[in-house]
Amino acid sequence: MNMYIEGAKCIRCNKEWQISEIRYQCPTCQGNLDIAYNYKALRNNYPKTSFRQNKLYSIWRYLPFLPLKKMPERPLQLGWTPLYPVPNEYGIKLFIKDEGRNPSGSLKDRATAIVLEAAQEAGITHLTTASTGNAGSSLACLSASMGIETTVFVPDKAPEAKIAQMCIFGTRVYSVIGSYDDAYDLCIRASNLLGWYNRSTGYNPLTREGKKTCAYEICEQLDWHVPDWVIVSVGDGNILSGLWKGFKDLYGIGYIDRLPKMAGVQSFASNAIALSVRSAQNKASIDIESVQASTIADSISVNTPRDGVFAVKAILESRGMIIEVTDEKILMAIKTVAQRWGIFGEPAGVACVAGLEKLWEDGTLKSGEVVVCIITGNGLKDVGSALKASLNRVRVIASQSDLTQVLRRI
Amino acid sequence: MNMYIEGAKCIRCNKEWQISEIRYQCPTCQGNLDIAYNYKALRNNYPKTSFRQNKLYSIWRYLPFLPLKKMPERPLQLGWTPLYPVPNEYGIKLFIKDEGRNPSGSLKDRATAIVLEAAQEAGITHLTTASTGNAGSSLACLSASMGIETTVFVPDKAPEAKIAQMCIFGTRVYSVIGSYDDAYDLCIRASNLLGWYNRSTGYNPLTREGKKTCAYEICEQLDWHVPDWVIVSVGDGNILSGLWKGFKDLYGIGYIDRLPKMAGVQSFASNAIALSVRSAQNKASIDIESVQASTIADSISVNTPRDGVFAVKAILESRGMIIEVTDEKILMAIKTVAQRWGIFGEPAGVACVAGLEKLWEDGTLKSGEVVVCIITGNGLKDVGSALKASLNRVRVIASQSDLTQVLRRI
Repeated sequence: MNMYIEGAKCIRCNKEWQISEIRYQCPTCQGNLDIAYNYKALRNNYPKTSFRQNKLYSIWRYLPFLPLKKMPERPLQLGWTPLYPVPNEYGIKLFIKDEGRNPSGSLKDRATAIVLEAAQEAGITHLTTASTGNAGSSLACLSASMGIETTVFVPDKAPEAKIAQMCIFGTRVYSVIGSYDDAYDLCIRASNLLGWYNRSTGYNPLTREGKKTCAYEICEQLDWHVPDWVIVSVGDGNILSGLWKGFKDLYGIGYIDRLPKMAGVQSFASNAIALSVRSAQNKASIDIESVQASTIADSISVNTPRDGVFAVKAILESRGMIIEVTDEKILMAIKTVAQRWGIFGEPAGVACVAGLEKLWEDGTLKSGEVVVCIITGNGLKDVGSALKASLNRVRVIASQSDLTQVLRRI
Repeated sequence: MNMYIEGAKCIRCNKEWQISEIRYQCPTCQGNLDIAYNYKALRNNYPKTSFRQNKLYSIWRYLPFLPLKKMPERPLQLGWTPLYPVPNEYGIKLFIKDEGRNPSGSLKDRATAIVLEAAQEAGITHLTTASTGNAGSSLACLSASMGIETTVFVPDKAPEAKIAQMCIFGTRVYSVIGSYDDAYDLCIRASNLLGWYNRSTGYNPLTREGKKTCAYEICEQLDWHVPDWVIVSVGDGNILSGLWKGFKDLYGIGYIDRLPKMAGVQSFASNAIALSVRSAQNKASIDIESVQASTIADSISVNTPRDGVFAVKAILESRGMIIEVTDEKILMAIKTVAQRWGIFGEPAGVACVAGLEKLWEDGTLKSGEVVVCIITGNGLKDVGSALKASLNRVRVIASQSDLTQVLRRI
């Protein structure tokens, strides 16, 4: 493990632990754990200028800030995804971070990579995860070449493309009749019974450590300027919490001089974090609400967000927002993102843009502000939703004379 | 147009033309055209060492060698795809180039980008292409943010994911009841009638100019060493011809001191180039044979290869090979590539690995040789084939007690 790690702190009860004392959650209260680093030592040994000479354009450029002992061998090209400045009608400085360009097509690869490398350093040979689809296809993809066996639990409604990825990479897939939450509980039971190392998002504190690299990249790609807003979809809360951790790391180390406001976007049909943020605003403690999730955006369809406490804290601490949008607006956003900027995102991936529109309409965003939207997954992972969003534009031509007819009408 | 361009030469009749005299094909014999550069001037003005300082990791790092006037604005991240050294049982030095990491998920983006930018420089506002799927989805993707309208002609058997990409990016799609070749002919007729600029692969000489950047990257990523073999699937022949053009450019400019052997891989169910190579070996001229293509690898399902002459020349000039494999071996290669190296390719994308196996079995490859296989397209573009290749590995769990049963059997 990285020598700059000082320990882990429970997000719920604040108790501090040595790394050797913990595996997944707080031994006292079963809260999620946050890995703590010695920011001062990192600042002294890795000045910001050291990145100017760094020619490694992947998540591994941030190795000193990650919970690993050494540089992984033969990894797939991971992270350093494009951050595009894109035109918009709002007068803001809008950037789109395209996470669909990762190896398995989603931001999840950042988390998976760290968990897998840590597992390999520890000599673990079997991993498991619960997944709405992307975490599982990511685990299957990145483990394929490492001699590590994997078992994935998914809800039976996971899209076919994600299942196909898991199958082709050779993972063992269990399709659970029920929700993501059912798959999650079964996965924990299986890993406890069989001793498999559990990657499940939020539950395993290393997932947040992987996802924080996305925040590092955003700041470095903006030449260490901090955006005013970061907008991203929220399911179990772990991407939002990972991003927030990343920004707080950079602030702690002294690379940046302020923090962005975090905006989480949920579907009305899966809005547990939204309810939790609202109830937390009137109370001292954070309670995570449960819902019956049914959104078309399968990657954020979650009844009980497993990294919810950290996500709610991120929104409150950053003086950000939680935004709810309809599934209809999410489908429209697929089209918007594709036709304006040439990026094809899955429903959960583009929900941030539906959120952006709402933030603009309600006057929250100010002209001139720097805003980053994160497209969390590739649209090829859910072709059915894209076809729904685009309506049927395909015209059939049966013959040469058909063509003449058609061309005459153009 | 680039000041280093000297003109264009017909691949069939060898007649030379000024750039201003040509648009698509040779005005005399309708052969395909090859753009010619002043290698000596390029050598003098762009020494190989100039690339050491070049921090632009995309196809645009090779701008002086491309048929464009100036650096495009706001382009999507294109090219500089990973070249992975991967373990193998043959004792060769094997590298996999993953072209599925391009914006629309295929190597076609290299060609589309050049055609689109040249079109924009010329003030053209409507483009069209015939496509088995990838060229169309690539054109749709890259044109989306440029204010350029597009119309695509595809055979009715094009996979759903590629159609979905075209639709969501807002292109007008014509599904032609028939083959790729039927779509090709209709597309040329439409572009002639309506004045649309035609991107169709091979027909438009700029597609080869885009694809050659893949060869540049391979050499630069190997620190300007030349592989012994480059293996890639062949449909209409344009990827093979583009790669060969790229290597010949570098050789002409003096960046490399020898040329690789080019191995083209076809399905027995779409083997026009294989037949043409064989018949050309006994004759002075190259005649392109036609077949009735029916391979599962839709991207290389072609009756009459439209850039066949150049492709056959590449194989003969380089003293390479044409290899035919069964569709069954192609499906098996999807699994091999995924499970050994963590890369998910579409059927045509992984055909090179089926070809590699055959080249090894027949004793053509020698131990220690450097071999590059090019995965031309992302597996998410054809999930159906992946599911066929992986068999059904999904197990269903209906309840907690089901899980107990299942875990007991592990």
